[in-house]
Amino acid sequence: VQTALRLQTRGLTPSRSQLFSHMPGELVKALRAVAGSPNVSTALAVREQHGRDESMHRCSPPDAVVWPQDVEQVSKLAGICYSHGVPIIPFSTGTGLEGGVTAVRGGVCFNLTRMDRITALSTEDFTVAVEPGVTRKALNSYLRDTGLWFPVDPGADASLCGMAATSASGTNAVRYGTMRHNVLNLQVVLADGRVLHTAGRGRHFRKSAAGYNLTGLFVGSEGTLGLITQATLRLHGSPEAIVAAVCAFPSVHAAVGCTVQVLQAGIPVARIEFLDDVMMAACNRFSGLSYAVSPTLFLEFHGSPGSVEEQVRQAGEIVQLNGGSDFAWAWELEARNKLWAARHNAWYAALALRPGSKVGYLTAESCSPFKQLVCVSSGLIVGHVGDGNFHCILVFDPADLDEIQRVKEFATRLARQALALDGTCTGEHGIGLGKRHLLCEEIGELGLTIMRQIKAILDPKNLMNPGKVL
Amino acid sequence: VQTALRLQTRGLTPSRSQLFSHMPGELVKALRAVAGSPNVSTALAVREQHGRDESMHRCSPPDAVVWPQDVEQVSKLAGICYSHGVPIIPFSTGTGLEGGVTAVRGGVCFNLTRMDRITALSTEDFTVAVEPGVTRKALNSYLRDTGLWFPVDPGADASLCGMAATSASGTNAVRYGTMRHNVLNLQVVLADGRVLHTAGRGRHFRKSAAGYNLTGLFVGSEGTLGLITQATLRLHGSPEAIVAAVCAFPSVHAAVGCTVQVLQAGIPVARIEFLDDVMMAACNRFSGLSYAVSPTLFLEFHGSPGSVEEQVRQAGEIVQLNGGSDFAWAWELEARNKLWAARHNAWYAALALRPGSKVGYLTAESCSPFKQLVCVSSGLIVGHVGDGNFHCILVFDPADLDEIQRVKEFATRLARQALALDGTCTGEHGIGLGKRHLLCEEIGELGLTIMRQIKAILDPKNLMNPGKVL
Repeated sequence: VQTALRLQTRGLTPSRSQLFSHMPGELVKALRAVAGSPNVSTALAVREQHGRDESMHRCSPPDAVVWPQDVEQVSKLAGICYSHGVPIIPFSTGTGLEGGVTAVRGGVCFNLTRMDRITALSTEDFTVAVEPGVTRKALNSYLRDTGLWFPVDPGADASLCGMAATSASGTNAVRYGTMRHNVLNLQVVLADGRVLHTAGRGRHFRKSAAGYNLTGLFVGSEGTLGLITQATLRLHGSPEAIVAAVCAFPSVHAAVGCTVQVLQAGIPVARIEFLDDVMMAACNRFSGLSYAVSPTLFLEFHGSPGSVEEQVRQAGEIVQLNGGSDFAWAWELEARNKLWAARHNAWYAALALRPGSKVGYLTAESCSPFKQLVCVSSGLIVGHVGDGNFHCILVFDPADLDEIQRVKEFATRLARQALALDGTCTGEHGIGLGKRHLLCEEIGELGLTIMRQIKAILDPKNLMNPGKVL
Repeated sequence: VQTALRLQTRGLTPSRSQLFSHMPGELVKALRAVAGSPNVSTALAVREQHGRDESMHRCSPPDAVVWPQDVEQVSKLAGICYSHGVPIIPFSTGTGLEGGVTAVRGGVCFNLTRMDRITALSTEDFTVAVEPGVTRKALNSYLRDTGLWFPVDPGADASLCGMAATSASGTNAVRYGTMRHNVLNLQVVLADGRVLHTAGRGRHFRKSAAGYNLTGLFVGSEGTLGLITQATLRLHGSPEAIVAAVCAFPSVHAAVGCTVQVLQAGIPVARIEFLDDVMMAACNRFSGLSYAVSPTLFLEFHGSPGSVEEQVRQAGEIVQLNGGSDFAWAWELEARNKLWAARHNAWYAALALRPGSKVGYLTAESCSPFKQLVCVSSGLIVGHVGDGNFHCILVFDPADLDEIQRVKEFATRLARQALALDGTCTGEHGIGLGKRHLLCEEIGELGLTIMRQIKAILDPKNLMNPGKVL
């Protein structure tokens, strides 16, 4: 989930025809009239930068990139694209992992990073509104002195509106929920330029039973229903104390059993992450560590000092019951970071297994009942195990088309295994380009039909990020 | 939110024409062929029972009531209604508070209480699937020995599928979330009889990013999009220890300030309920108690014994800082119930203010930023103050049409006040019949248009619980 090397290799670069912008001059002129000339670009380098995310999906550059300054401009620019029948692709940090920002049918990329205001902070109501240019780290830095924070943490320093668009989650979800649970309202520009407030303009309540949950409909819609131009988020009180812990297990089964029992005991664990033995070996090598090469759990506890102490004690007992050993914990930030170094560097450790300047990787990700983890054959696994969500990092030579094919087939097999166990093909990365063939298997024909009908209501010309999800 | 007296008075009984079933004999015959003769009734007494919930909305009996035994029957029966163009109204416990089950356009009431299976319990994955006949108390009784429970508690012993349909919440929502956060999958029969699994058949994962959130769309749809025939729920570990506490405050402002600070301090309070001075006086009188006649908070803490002890200590300090007094707490079930007696009996205490056999009441309910509570003039207020959600109980003489009118106007004023403060007109009771005029004010024209379009996709003939929400 972390930032990693970009692919720049044969077979994954844009196709020849995509090197040229197909944008009519008249349309470019209209975009410039709204956003200002310097805020519209058709330069190849710029378009290429906007045609890929951090996944292995082939770069598909848009025909033009525009940087709107505010929601009024977004609305007008969308209206122009709509009247010209040209695709609209929202873009912010480009940290997605399923090709969500690729312009597979060309069109105009809306780079929303210049809209970066944080507004309407209410420390009484635990709410704040952010524009697409605000990343989670920027928000938490802004909140530093308020005693509040926003806990959803997908690893990358992603745009919060982008996280809403992809239904992101990450390590803290076991305690604080995913974006689905922490988005209270969205301002959305529809394909034709109309501006929707999913829970009503300016509203920021903690719960509601008023009509259909439109906010929930847009969270996870991956830019296919509209451009999210503002998200109202639910904040949480910063934990007074944090303790990190690590422990090794004799088997995957024992580590998963321990996780289930920690949750059953009602220990409000904030993070519980799993690394398998192969991954631990890679981490030891990469970071010069000497952890046991065994299935390992990384835990984090939040709360008051007394509560955290008790959580550690209780968890320690459960670890022991499950044959865990080397249970180590740390209170101070530096010591915590040292303890969690293996987890933090897992991504780079995996990539380093294939030395050389050109490395490709694919994250096979799915989420399922706890049974699955036990079934998966070992190999570079990182799991948000408290949610049953895990990632299998596959490192390959991007020049080797055969290997790419094998890697893709493995990812599909893994997703199908999750589906066979009543799970989902994606816990947090989204459908994007790469998992469209699995969505119907997961949701069924009728569910997919209804999704298509909803898409047709909100985007009748199929201009919003076309070719994704459905 | 508790069960209370039913209205049986002039002006609120069915209209003359509603006394007669308008169901064509041919249709009744078709329903009987599917459900069996004894499971279809057109008797007035039965129809009247099914034409009202626990609110003051006029009883509107359906033309027939049918008791399906399984989802296949529901599907076939819906198909029959669909082909005859006859409204379909889902019904289970009838404990709603916004007239959601009234058959304002006649039609067939589907009483789903005979479908009462609890299936697919997974104590490892913390999930269970329930049919509409399963109430929250029945589920928790079933779970008693598993170490798990389902915490959403609207007061009434409502059907869990009904709670999903109305996006119910209640006292535990501040810690465990509402139905929106605890429903993982729904089996829904659409108006034309097609069976949808909102997250895919049999799936029960803790999180997903696969396509649009159809589950979230049906939670809170109040029977207007389809009949919920099964809900897969997220369970939680039962708390090892529970402590209840009560304290009085010199002002509403102080009680609300204390609530905000408890939440800001990150104390994981399970319940935090507010009763104003008028309500406390009523409770003292009704239950023979001697609480201070002041704004009062009722709290409950869940966790390990050590953590609960610390929560109580921390909360006690914050109570003191806000001028709170008489801070009392209790560990044992009996003592806890005694301490919370005032809160538990608040409803009956309010009704008892108007002696006589015939009492009407209306719960003006809304949810807003914390500012509002401080603004509201006092009078029989019960608040889920941790969510900014509160109820104002209005007791009146149901024979006095003028008073009914004044009560309705007061409820609308209160909801508009919440809207003016960026809140919602309903935190948990839903729109139903009574708040349709407020939904547009809350969500705006565009939001309402999109809701109508979604309704038209799923229910093109407007047969699913017509006249509600939109």
